[in-house]
Amino acid sequence: MKRYERLADQIAALIRSGVLAPGARVPSVRHASRSHGVSPSTVFQAYYLLEDRGLIQARPRSGYFVREHARQLLPEPEIGSAQAQPAEVDVSELVFSVLGSLKDPDTVPFGSAFPSPALFPLARLARSMAHGLRDLAPQAVIADMTAGNPELRRQIALRYMACGVRLPPAELVISNGALEALNLCLQCVTQPGDLVAIEAPAFYATLQVLERLKLKAVEIPVHPREGIDLERLASSLTRLPVKACWFMSSLQNPLGASMSEAKKAALYELLQRHQVPLIEDDVYAELYFGAQSPRPVKSFDRDGLVMHCGSFSKCLAPGYRVGWVAGGRYAEQIGRLRLMTTISPSVPAQAALADYLQHGGYDRHLRRLRHALEAQQGAMLAAAARHFPADTRVSQPSGGYFLWFEFPERVDSLQLFQLALAQGISLAPGPIFSATRRFGNCARLNYGHPWDARSEQAMATLGRILAAF
Amino acid sequence: MKRYERLADQIAALIRSGVLAPGARVPSVRHASRSHGVSPSTVFQAYYLLEDRGLIQARPRSGYFVREHARQLLPEPEIGSAQAQPAEVDVSELVFSVLGSLKDPDTVPFGSAFPSPALFPLARLARSMAHGLRDLAPQAVIADMTAGNPELRRQIALRYMACGVRLPPAELVISNGALEALNLCLQCVTQPGDLVAIEAPAFYATLQVLERLKLKAVEIPVHPREGIDLERLASSLTRLPVKACWFMSSLQNPLGASMSEAKKAALYELLQRHQVPLIEDDVYAELYFGAQSPRPVKSFDRDGLVMHCGSFSKCLAPGYRVGWVAGGRYAEQIGRLRLMTTISPSVPAQAALADYLQHGGYDRHLRRLRHALEAQQGAMLAAAARHFPADTRVSQPSGGYFLWFEFPERVDSLQLFQLALAQGISLAPGPIFSATRRFGNCARLNYGHPWDARSEQAMATLGRILAAF
Repeated sequence: MKRYERLADQIAALIRSGVLAPGARVPSVRHASRSHGVSPSTVFQAYYLLEDRGLIQARPRSGYFVREHARQLLPEPEIGSAQAQPAEVDVSELVFSVLGSLKDPDTVPFGSAFPSPALFPLARLARSMAHGLRDLAPQAVIADMTAGNPELRRQIALRYMACGVRLPPAELVISNGALEALNLCLQCVTQPGDLVAIEAPAFYATLQVLERLKLKAVEIPVHPREGIDLERLASSLTRLPVKACWFMSSLQNPLGASMSEAKKAALYELLQRHQVPLIEDDVYAELYFGAQSPRPVKSFDRDGLVMHCGSFSKCLAPGYRVGWVAGGRYAEQIGRLRLMTTISPSVPAQAALADYLQHGGYDRHLRRLRHALEAQQGAMLAAAARHFPADTRVSQPSGGYFLWFEFPERVDSLQLFQLALAQGISLAPGPIFSATRRFGNCARLNYGHPWDARSEQAMATLGRILAAF
Repeated sequence: MKRYERLADQIAALIRSGVLAPGARVPSVRHASRSHGVSPSTVFQAYYLLEDRGLIQARPRSGYFVREHARQLLPEPEIGSAQAQPAEVDVSELVFSVLGSLKDPDTVPFGSAFPSPALFPLARLARSMAHGLRDLAPQAVIADMTAGNPELRRQIALRYMACGVRLPPAELVISNGALEALNLCLQCVTQPGDLVAIEAPAFYATLQVLERLKLKAVEIPVHPREGIDLERLASSLTRLPVKACWFMSSLQNPLGASMSEAKKAALYELLQRHQVPLIEDDVYAELYFGAQSPRPVKSFDRDGLVMHCGSFSKCLAPGYRVGWVAGGRYAEQIGRLRLMTTISPSVPAQAALADYLQHGGYDRHLRRLRHALEAQQGAMLAAAARHFPADTRVSQPSGGYFLWFEFPERVDSLQLFQLALAQGISLAPGPIFSATRRFGNCARLNYGHPWDARSEQAMATLGRILAAF
């Protein structure tokens, strides 16, 4: 990371934490240059970058100011208060009807689960594919099915090491995206009828997988910034025969919550005491806006209780379908389950990613992607403040590409979804994120697409629909 | 197909059917030229091709003769006589211990499930990958995850049409290889505890999938040439609450049996009467040695009861992990199950195959591959006749790359497996093909690798081990 990028990140952190409030003047170039011990031109470069990221703006002859939307203008959602009672899951039909509505490419994709493909280095990946296939020994097309591409495994292990997780290579199972890994992990530690603790709101695919595997859900409420309610979890673990937890400890989908390191450590100790395995869904880990990668619960794992699932689908190569799990004590069994269901992720896709991770400039791409997403988040927050009812609440996650809106009680988000769709705008209504159909006045909006006049207009249209409730 | 290739196929059919017996003189070039109405040079080309395929050999100044091994020298295995009783399946550990033994690249791979990668057009596929990725619109990396690559779907539908199956495009679900398709099909029509009719011997992955999904097996015996015993199946369907059948109607793994068209039609009518869905595992369909593609049971399907699963893994692109299912009335539900487990097969792999099927010369490749496999089958049969005990029985399938050996009762194939492995030779012992650990004196040998002195030596070694029992 260059010096000016580091400086920009430091200032961005001050803005996010509220030390530099919206409207506040950013220190002058001369002042910043002196106090940070860098050249004025480094400060300028940092400020240009912050301007690009939508966090500050220049006012003629007055210097730089924190933009109004740079911290949220709408308050954050309330903490949910679901009773943690086991529930049968039956949400698939609703999810599929929502997903089906996203197919029209002319729809404004606020309901999408992916960022814009324009944000990914697809041409560079294609070159890596060519190199990867050229260097692949013919026997590897068969050998790599069982073990996974060895260079890809090495590169993933190196990234774990860089964020403080020492991983025996045998723990790593490459999978068809994280969703397969999550499915396999769950099958590894549960039987039909078992109880699994999940988040509320939860990623809707979690609910679908539970439904498919005939598992029951205990919903643990998630605070929009701080993550799951540990007390509630502790009480559920004591009262109920919970067989596994499926949590996103960082940049939770849909709320964007990230647990603090202390809370992650406490979560691990709690699970360790009860010997309940954690399936840690960490697919947004690389999309943090702060200075460094959030540490996973896996980094506290002493006895292989945590299955940590990651993926390249959200941050580099959507459609390639390459994910993985650091499977702890369950790794061998997970690998065998994979051999029995899909055998292997695509060998060429593995080879392409192995080449890209070595030579493609992954960290440079990630920095650009994070900055683009942060700017887009600012734009959507500002538009929401302009167009949505004043009693709307919204999350302000420190990464990812989703905002979670809590509208006034009078808003029915399934109806909102239908009305918006009629205007060519998709969104993800709250009830698809709950086994018990809660969050009827909430919605998840995707800001993963470059912000333009059409996006702005779509927010205005949503505002008009919301006002009519 | 060129004229000389057609002629060669006609003569090959005469050899296979026994009209031209081993040792018999093949008609002279002059005679053949007259009787087939082709030029002498066409006959020469056809004979060269048959020589390449290991079916005939020239004797100096005497003309061409059918090679001794061109029809089997060892008799075919007996029809099994398993009692069709429901059985719990518990074979995974055994299968994994056998598969684990295949990892050493120096082992003679008679136990492998794949043909040699040298037989596949990997460089041409890499070019198709480059073209496919170049032509892929950025949105497609996301859109193709749900629907599948549209050109790939079209190409697969065209191949169905060419062999007489009219397929509404909506029936086609692209999958992570056929094994995922088979898994999804089974989940679609069964619940844990249900009964599924399978073959005996059966592909071991079938057994593993049943075990994983907690399904019970009814084993239906397979005749080494004619396929499953329909009477036995009919009686099972009457006596037992069978929820689905998983059969390979052509080139069955491991026996190589292909049902006649009449028998396939009768199978369909039987299942239709009982309204029991058929999961038709047809992954070896393209590897027939005869003049034309065997017709699938799916071609008789009037009401969407047959789920027909295919793949490119055995005939074109191992490791790409692209298969499909023509899912009949279950297609939509299968597609949804896939979205909930792996979302999608790799989009680049789909694009590469779509390009290859259009421009790569698939049918030319398949002809070459079939001829290579047929020659290799001849070589392994001849070696077996030379080296194995005279009371050994062996299948002689009209396609694929597996031979099924039934050794004298005194041979314990699990012990044979261990002894052979100690000599650097792998094989697939009979019991991994049975839910009830039958076939203890049988083994499957793979002839999918170019035949050389090492292969010949390995057969001799196996012969010595067999003799010692």
